[in-house]
Amino acid sequence: MSKHWSRLISQVQPYTPGEQPREKEYVKLNTNENPYPPSPQAIRAMREAANEDLRLYPHPAYENLREAAGRRHGLNKEQVFVGNGSDEILAFSFLAFFDPDEPLLIPAITYSFYTVYADIFQVNYQTVPLKDDFSPRLEVFLRRRGNVLLPNPNTPTGKTISPEEIEKLVAEKEDKVVIIDEAYVDFGGRSAVPLIRDYPNLLITRTLSKSHSLAGLRVGYALGQESLVEGLWRVKNSINPYTLDRISARGAAAALEDEEYCQRIVSRVVQTRERTGRKLEEMGFQVVDSNSNFLLVTHPDYGGEQLFKGLKERGILVRYFPQPPVDDYFRVSVGSEEEMDAFLDTLAELV
Amino acid sequence: MSKHWSRLISQVQPYTPGEQPREKEYVKLNTNENPYPPSPQAIRAMREAANEDLRLYPHPAYENLREAAGRRHGLNKEQVFVGNGSDEILAFSFLAFFDPDEPLLIPAITYSFYTVYADIFQVNYQTVPLKDDFSPRLEVFLRRRGNVLLPNPNTPTGKTISPEEIEKLVAEKEDKVVIIDEAYVDFGGRSAVPLIRDYPNLLITRTLSKSHSLAGLRVGYALGQESLVEGLWRVKNSINPYTLDRISARGAAAALEDEEYCQRIVSRVVQTRERTGRKLEEMGFQVVDSNSNFLLVTHPDYGGEQLFKGLKERGILVRYFPQPPVDDYFRVSVGSEEEMDAFLDTLAELV
Repeated sequence: MSKHWSRLISQVQPYTPGEQPREKEYVKLNTNENPYPPSPQAIRAMREAANEDLRLYPHPAYENLREAAGRRHGLNKEQVFVGNGSDEILAFSFLAFFDPDEPLLIPAITYSFYTVYADIFQVNYQTVPLKDDFSPRLEVFLRRRGNVLLPNPNTPTGKTISPEEIEKLVAEKEDKVVIIDEAYVDFGGRSAVPLIRDYPNLLITRTLSKSHSLAGLRVGYALGQESLVEGLWRVKNSINPYTLDRISARGAAAALEDEEYCQRIVSRVVQTRERTGRKLEEMGFQVVDSNSNFLLVTHPDYGGEQLFKGLKERGILVRYFPQPPVDDYFRVSVGSEEEMDAFLDTLAELV
Repeated sequence: MSKHWSRLISQVQPYTPGEQPREKEYVKLNTNENPYPPSPQAIRAMREAANEDLRLYPHPAYENLREAAGRRHGLNKEQVFVGNGSDEILAFSFLAFFDPDEPLLIPAITYSFYTVYADIFQVNYQTVPLKDDFSPRLEVFLRRRGNVLLPNPNTPTGKTISPEEIEKLVAEKEDKVVIIDEAYVDFGGRSAVPLIRDYPNLLITRTLSKSHSLAGLRVGYALGQESLVEGLWRVKNSINPYTLDRISARGAAAALEDEEYCQRIVSRVVQTRERTGRKLEEMGFQVVDSNSNFLLVTHPDYGGEQLFKGLKERGILVRYFPQPPVDDYFRVSVGSEEEMDAFLDTLAELV
């Protein structure tokens, strides 16, 4: 606390990013990073972009990148907004679409940044409890008044909702904004992008951090009809017009053009997830059915925190969430085959 | 306007960045970019950083970059905050330090983004008129209640204030926060950094966009005592913890290490500024005394807007600001010798 801080910043509880330890080499399965390198075409494009043109500001419209994202999804560039990770786009969305006095509905267990945004932008949010199988209760989102922010798949559960269910939501809430955070959708969810054509109140956020293996590059984008996209530009141009640098914009466009590479590494992650899930079940774990690049797991005889700590002591970093009903679980990112073998072998020492 | 926009975003008037034209090749003297390339060491570091590690999130503390900035200024890394351009850091400062009901004092003519931040973060600001020579009226900042945001040198005037004047301000306003935006200070201003040791209410923002010729990289930093720096981290970790990517963090650190190169290109810009100013005066222009990498100029017989338009038609892009008392002026960035010759030759056709 400091007498020079604003009242707002004295009260907020900032987000705690997953550990990025420097002091020791861990098998790092805590932040859902992709175990495979990014597209070689993207790396080549970034090396080329590290040139003397860096003396100039980026083009603030980022047209090449928006065109690349549009092509990937069959949309035009006016339906694409780009930003510094989907984190930035989600933060901007709170300012662009949510009035403080209007409730925002989010799942009770979800990406823990959502409530931090709500606090700093003073948006009144309501949490909707999960079903017993950890799926979101769509009927409650439908029934309650308010805007909606829902990840699909959800994190840390990996549970998906269908585009048909999302369509019910956006159709019912035509005066409200429904944001679907598709950070993990490439790993097995079904995207709601085709609904954009018919629903001006649907915004979909995406990131290159997961399926495109570019967490270190900080690029995300949002898809929606022009009026929502324009709302995001208005926020961006009121805070920081150039949040993507010249290199990351070029690298991201090249990564989006190399869709075949992305699909190849995604399918390897999916295979490893399935294999790891089976092995965990053989070891007596319950594994939440995941369509993402992580698994949420629990063991009837061992606490989630206990296993998290035991793994960490042995050089394996996973993530533990202390909130019920997931406080008996831990989340493990799907790494390479070798990383998952190390994880499984170490876990076998603990149970 | 859209029914899905928040009330806030329906009302704000976003910042208009200087034009970054794509349709035509201009001599681009409108956004105060550096005419010389960035440090070759920085470019090399970025090419090296464009590697497979991009699959991993950046280290959220950005220690190497903060250490490099600290070394440059004789501070430790706890006194350094880093962000996506000083634009982002200034935006975060509004949330971190300014309560909406407390006035914020800014010069009447200054970087036009300041009032946009104030609008989007709903901070009540007051503008302080300039003196006749366009210097800021320090005595009014001293007398009025409120936090202070003041660029040194100011833009678009290029006018400086001395560290002694700044010390009076921070000493008088010990319960308030005084932010000095030193984006352009390397071109001839005297930095207020030595005051940080004695004044916990002083924050200084810096950018690599100007003197380090890295406008395309989006890196800035802020210097201050730990409690102010911590306030900024609280905001960053409530909005977007990783706004610098792995490549830009590496490149910026390398650029800050190559101080000798920076000084060399800065002194070339300063020489060109002096020569250009003299030539403009010979042509009958009045040139505001500038310690920056731009000149604010006016001609007794020709309007600023008229000259701006005439130059643009002839392929030279400068910047025009329609607010009195600078609405008879235009601002020209100091480019290379060749660019300034082209500018002066074209201008000679117009007057």
